[in-house]
Amino acid sequence: MKIFIEGGYLITQEKVFKEGGVLIEDNLIVEAGDLKEVKKSVGRGFERIRANGKMIIPGLINTHTHISMTLFRGYADDYPLQEWLEKWIWPIEAKLKPEDIEIGAMLGALESIRMGVTTICTLYHYHPDHNEASGLLRIGLRGVVGIAVFTWQKDENIRNIKNALSRWHGRDGLIRVAVGPHAPYTVDPDLWIELSELRKWADEKYGDSGRVIITTHVAEDPNEAKITSERFNVKIPNGSLFKYLDNLGVLNEYFLAAHAIHLSNDDIKAIKDNNVKISHNPISNMKLGMGISPIYKLINEGIIVGLGTDGPASNNTLDIFETMKITSLLQKVITGDPTSIPARTAFKMATIYGAKALSYSGIGDIKPGYLADITIINLSNPHLIPIYDPISHLVYCIRSLDVDTVIINGEIKYHEGKFIGIDVNSVYEKVNKSVSRLLSEVSDIG
Amino acid sequence: MKIFIEGGYLITQEKVFKEGGVLIEDNLIVEAGDLKEVKKSVGRGFERIRANGKMIIPGLINTHTHISMTLFRGYADDYPLQEWLEKWIWPIEAKLKPEDIEIGAMLGALESIRMGVTTICTLYHYHPDHNEASGLLRIGLRGVVGIAVFTWQKDENIRNIKNALSRWHGRDGLIRVAVGPHAPYTVDPDLWIELSELRKWADEKYGDSGRVIITTHVAEDPNEAKITSERFNVKIPNGSLFKYLDNLGVLNEYFLAAHAIHLSNDDIKAIKDNNVKISHNPISNMKLGMGISPIYKLINEGIIVGLGTDGPASNNTLDIFETMKITSLLQKVITGDPTSIPARTAFKMATIYGAKALSYSGIGDIKPGYLADITIINLSNPHLIPIYDPISHLVYCIRSLDVDTVIINGEIKYHEGKFIGIDVNSVYEKVNKSVSRLLSEVSDIG
Repeated sequence: MKIFIEGGYLITQEKVFKEGGVLIEDNLIVEAGDLKEVKKSVGRGFERIRANGKMIIPGLINTHTHISMTLFRGYADDYPLQEWLEKWIWPIEAKLKPEDIEIGAMLGALESIRMGVTTICTLYHYHPDHNEASGLLRIGLRGVVGIAVFTWQKDENIRNIKNALSRWHGRDGLIRVAVGPHAPYTVDPDLWIELSELRKWADEKYGDSGRVIITTHVAEDPNEAKITSERFNVKIPNGSLFKYLDNLGVLNEYFLAAHAIHLSNDDIKAIKDNNVKISHNPISNMKLGMGISPIYKLINEGIIVGLGTDGPASNNTLDIFETMKITSLLQKVITGDPTSIPARTAFKMATIYGAKALSYSGIGDIKPGYLADITIINLSNPHLIPIYDPISHLVYCIRSLDVDTVIINGEIKYHEGKFIGIDVNSVYEKVNKSVSRLLSEVSDIG
Repeated sequence: MKIFIEGGYLITQEKVFKEGGVLIEDNLIVEAGDLKEVKKSVGRGFERIRANGKMIIPGLINTHTHISMTLFRGYADDYPLQEWLEKWIWPIEAKLKPEDIEIGAMLGALESIRMGVTTICTLYHYHPDHNEASGLLRIGLRGVVGIAVFTWQKDENIRNIKNALSRWHGRDGLIRVAVGPHAPYTVDPDLWIELSELRKWADEKYGDSGRVIITTHVAEDPNEAKITSERFNVKIPNGSLFKYLDNLGVLNEYFLAAHAIHLSNDDIKAIKDNNVKISHNPISNMKLGMGISPIYKLINEGIIVGLGTDGPASNNTLDIFETMKITSLLQKVITGDPTSIPARTAFKMATIYGAKALSYSGIGDIKPGYLADITIINLSNPHLIPIYDPISHLVYCIRSLDVDTVIINGEIKYHEGKFIGIDVNSVYEKVNKSVSRLLSEVSDIG
């Protein structure tokens, strides 16, 4: 399919065009820039998307979520963490069937698209036939799908990773499978090493269809170092979990750590020295009372930090526009410096840094040769008038629901209030059926 | 006009109805509750708003903004505070004509309505013919309009307040004029006392058309006590600005202080003892790097705290949904306690506590005898599925642009994507004209 996006602000990583144009052929961007120039290359057979008065940006990237947990958004808010997990989340998760995991991912994919997100990185339980990858594929969202690993079920989890790699990695040019050790306090040191080697093996074997990365959680809970040390009888040098992982030899540029809230200088050095990537999840970190990651320090060190929402059970949405704004606001207030994480940096975190965090080349920008993942924003609502600086507007003013059109891998998925080629109501029906069943099964226990 | 809102979740301060109904006659709510009951009273001549599958809530209340500054949203982001003020905001403000103030207020009123806000409290410069009150009236937004007072222009400012009271107070049942001393560091002690007496006099003379309150800024900047002390050669006891104001005898239940970030126990005691009201403005406080107000302490003390956005030049929107969520998130993260400011409290802050903060009876709830200020939310977007707890949904999931219908003082102002009885494009044209002129005049200086 050929698409010509005509007019409107065009925001690329290099430049802002006041009147831009983009040409797409199949799943690739073939031209992007000033409208007058781009127009010259428009031949026959291009579908035209009129974007004058709108804004064209790279599709946003959510570098950390648990997309199937969209089923649990708002299920249990305002509880202490342990009560939240033990009394609410784990009991209902225990009732999940493979189909529920797929349905939750479909719902989360719809939400992501509606909010201008074109790629997510997710981490959850896996079943060969129905899982997060199958759910994303049914909707058509690009995803890096981590398969969770815990020490107490490691054999099954590793079988799942191998199964997922052979079955879903590279599918439709949209899915990449990732190795997903849950966290230092749930994965023993030997298993970390085994998984690091597994990733390397997988990358060599399946890398032609896309890089295989590790996605995990590190330094989310303030007590995590202590718990890890006690549970696995290991020494955490000066309480630095990243130093501990570094000593295990598992840190490298394909290691994506979510949260990274409680960081000493040792942590930051280990992250930097190994070119580890960070996913910053400010909303979940705040909502669960976990803390504020000093990402201004990481950015100053040149460390790649992408943005994540975490699962909708602790957010309760998949809104990367909201995350951009809160990221910038939080760093300004903890530093007392209003110049901290300016709009341009927050925008990069939601796009090109997100791509780098996932080791995913070809997304996060609008330029020839890049994958055609594009979001178009309607600027007609009163809260978007006037406009002085489009990128500042993007971070501080534009709301996720201002998104007007979303293109993923060259396909129009959402346009002017409607999902294209997706039966939304049938997804909602499935969601409601799953939720009713889960609630009745959980109430049977209580 | 008679309106029957039929079906949908109905959220009142007392109760959540799963299938609710509301009857409005003229500008008042005459019945609200379970749909089956309410239906019995529907006679002839009711306009019907179908709200099944939607959510009916009290119109939201923004207790602090500078609504005309909507013209400057995004004009100068990511600058240090003094540079922001001196190099950017003040020079362009100096070029404002009275008509610009009115036009900015009209734009801000449109934005507020689009986002489900039905009452604002604003504070700005005044001109008898064209001002924030006249702008709000042209759109039909309810407003408490503070007239700013500074020591160095006090005679003119006090004349303005008296003029505004006689000309605008009570107009259309929508406008109340408030006395607006700017802040402790810009208003000398004698003037504080004079303005406190002026408020009392005005309340006695004009109170039949609505209470007259004081709206001001206190303890926004960390250096404010020091600056105040030096500028006016006064002692600020232990650095407590509220104690200082208490000693002047100007604190009482009609005193609304915005920001209140830097609070000692002395401050909190002075606030509580005098039943002072607080407007919490977390987004502006973060964006300017001013600090985080410990409002969980105030709430625990039973102090009334409403929510504010501050002016769009430091936010950059008038979005009270966003403010509710950030309020809750911020207190959870600074206390490390995920139960802090739960959804129900944040919702009250945006509604009934907001009403109390403005000493405005008859708004902030949906019940017979209250003014018909109502917001209806469309729940059909994927990020609002499923629903477990409507109030939690309201705070953590619903976005301002999910607002579907807004009724103010019994009039439908916005319905299903369209402003009713308002020529939006003519407002936008005026805004663009004002902005072009202002920018050209500012660039003439540079």
